[in-house]
Amino acid sequence: MKDNIKIYGKNILNELKGKDSLFLCVIASTKTSNIKGITGAGATPELTDFTPAADVELVILDSPQCLPEIPKTFVEGEAAPTPAVITKAALELTDLPFIVADAGAAVKPNIPYIKINDEPGKNIRTGKAVTDPKKIFEKGKLLGKTLSKLTDHIIIGESTPAGTTTALGVLTAMGYDARRKISGSMPENPHNLKYEVVSDGLKAAGYAKGQLESDPFKAVEIVGDPMIPAVAGITMGSSARITLAGGTQMTSVCAFIKKLDSEFDFNNICISTTRFVAEDETSDINHIARQIDDITIIAVDPGFENSNNTGLKRYVSGSVKEGVGAGGAMLAALLNGASMEDIRTKTEELCERIF
Amino acid sequence: MKDNIKIYGKNILNELKGKDSLFLCVIASTKTSNIKGITGAGATPELTDFTPAADVELVILDSPQCLPEIPKTFVEGEAAPTPAVITKAALELTDLPFIVADAGAAVKPNIPYIKINDEPGKNIRTGKAVTDPKKIFEKGKLLGKTLSKLTDHIIIGESTPAGTTTALGVLTAMGYDARRKISGSMPENPHNLKYEVVSDGLKAAGYAKGQLESDPFKAVEIVGDPMIPAVAGITMGSSARITLAGGTQMTSVCAFIKKLDSEFDFNNICISTTRFVAEDETSDINHIARQIDDITIIAVDPGFENSNNTGLKRYVSGSVKEGVGAGGAMLAALLNGASMEDIRTKTEELCERIF
Repeated sequence: MKDNIKIYGKNILNELKGKDSLFLCVIASTKTSNIKGITGAGATPELTDFTPAADVELVILDSPQCLPEIPKTFVEGEAAPTPAVITKAALELTDLPFIVADAGAAVKPNIPYIKINDEPGKNIRTGKAVTDPKKIFEKGKLLGKTLSKLTDHIIIGESTPAGTTTALGVLTAMGYDARRKISGSMPENPHNLKYEVVSDGLKAAGYAKGQLESDPFKAVEIVGDPMIPAVAGITMGSSARITLAGGTQMTSVCAFIKKLDSEFDFNNICISTTRFVAEDETSDINHIARQIDDITIIAVDPGFENSNNTGLKRYVSGSVKEGVGAGGAMLAALLNGASMEDIRTKTEELCERIF
Repeated sequence: MKDNIKIYGKNILNELKGKDSLFLCVIASTKTSNIKGITGAGATPELTDFTPAADVELVILDSPQCLPEIPKTFVEGEAAPTPAVITKAALELTDLPFIVADAGAAVKPNIPYIKINDEPGKNIRTGKAVTDPKKIFEKGKLLGKTLSKLTDHIIIGESTPAGTTTALGVLTAMGYDARRKISGSMPENPHNLKYEVVSDGLKAAGYAKGQLESDPFKAVEIVGDPMIPAVAGITMGSSARITLAGGTQMTSVCAFIKKLDSEFDFNNICISTTRFVAEDETSDINHIARQIDDITIIAVDPGFENSNNTGLKRYVSGSVKEGVGAGGAMLAALLNGASMEDIRTKTEELCERIF
């Protein structure tokens, strides 16, 4: 197992091992994902509205209901499968419960899900991204409280197209140095476009970079996405251990929490992601995390260079990288007795069957 | 404990004892509850639209958010508190998780909840009560499957104003003898009005009593409510033990299940209700249940005749009787070590504090 896991920070694997766990996937949208070239999470910019719903439908129902096409990341016409397929493989191997919460997805999934918030976010270029993030946060807190009565460990994944751009927005508004440090779903990370969109949003709302250092709600309201306050609320409301399953987007959740409560104890939470994020040369998750607190980051390597599946192999060259909590789902499977080969084989089988 | 519990059927208390449990409250509406005189579950017929949301908000948040008034049952100007207060007391004593699922409530609660279905039912007099009950059932099944990964025992309560009338509708359409056997929230049970409404609905849809013996979906579609297929789906999708926490409405769920699957094993489920339903002289839950299968019914007596609270005392003379899974919640508390005096005292305290 060790060969496939790299830990940045404290080794907490023994604390997580054997814990009764559930996997919660928080879905959300902003119209930011419709900006051409900002994300690869959909065949066209408009279809990114469907990606969160299609992702969770794929995990639960084997095939998306809300659109005929399986979500893929397209780079120069070449497709890599959605990370939902990795999450599905990992969870099915260990029979972990998969629960979906809507923080404001543009398209709603055709499965039972927990409603936290209905309305998706707008294009952050407008400087009016999210309506009432405080309300989303408070509902998240209630949900965290309830879920932690049901389990010892909540693994929280997300599906939020263009979520690295909105994470960059919130981090920048609160004064963190995240420019060119945020990850992305394509091998060529459009850092300039992302920063320009964030700058436009801040300007439209009349704020300078760093000016919202002590107002995380305002930061989300103008240049964030609904996933951030939802996941922050769930984390702060929970008495169970939390694994934030995602890449640089999850650092924006940690930053949000830190700004709300400077005494917050990050020993009870960690970020779990994939090697593709942790070792991404176009971004730096550790650089962002270090500015926030001592946050342990656990990177899982699915070894897709050994895969026979062309789509999965594209992950190695920088497509997709992470999403739908793939890194955290793999970690949970590894901690519950699956081998990385089991996960890879199961993912390949699902790709064969589904695509 | 025994003094407060009466069992009709097999004594399964030891099977339920010590089980890891969660409480799921399914909320739903039909416009049937706006018919004057049909239900007491609201200060006016129109306000019954708010009752399900207000009930679950009360349990989670201590006070309803969706309307300024706490739900009460009014009989001749005298109020008895919503059974949500009993459920809240019982669950808080034992720290059981309380989860809400919307099967189609007219007003949505201001808390995180699981969305099964959005659209409330229409007045069953139209013969067009529920849109696509099959879809509601299928989503319920998915939810039952997921929840049973999280617990060994799901206690399912409901809040559905005029739900005894819609239960009568479904039972009658499927050929069960339920006339004058269905319970109600008022001491004077308006049996004639309920039956007239059901007959109107069947007539409007062009069906005779009993004609839908083998089509439970059609029965719900014309004269039912969205709670019935939702709870039937959760029950059939679950591998955990199920306690249906409710009165005669839950017999309509059992009947629905039986008609869908004549081989269904009712040994893994029971109905848990209050003494006020089980010993109600205006209805007969056992008479209905016996026509369906060997279904164990467990009746809990909160001993409200010993209460100092005038509102709770009105339960003894036939107001309210049951709802929001009060009987099942009390049973769960008793099985988890609370005494009936604990539950009564806590309920009284909550009434003092909230009302």
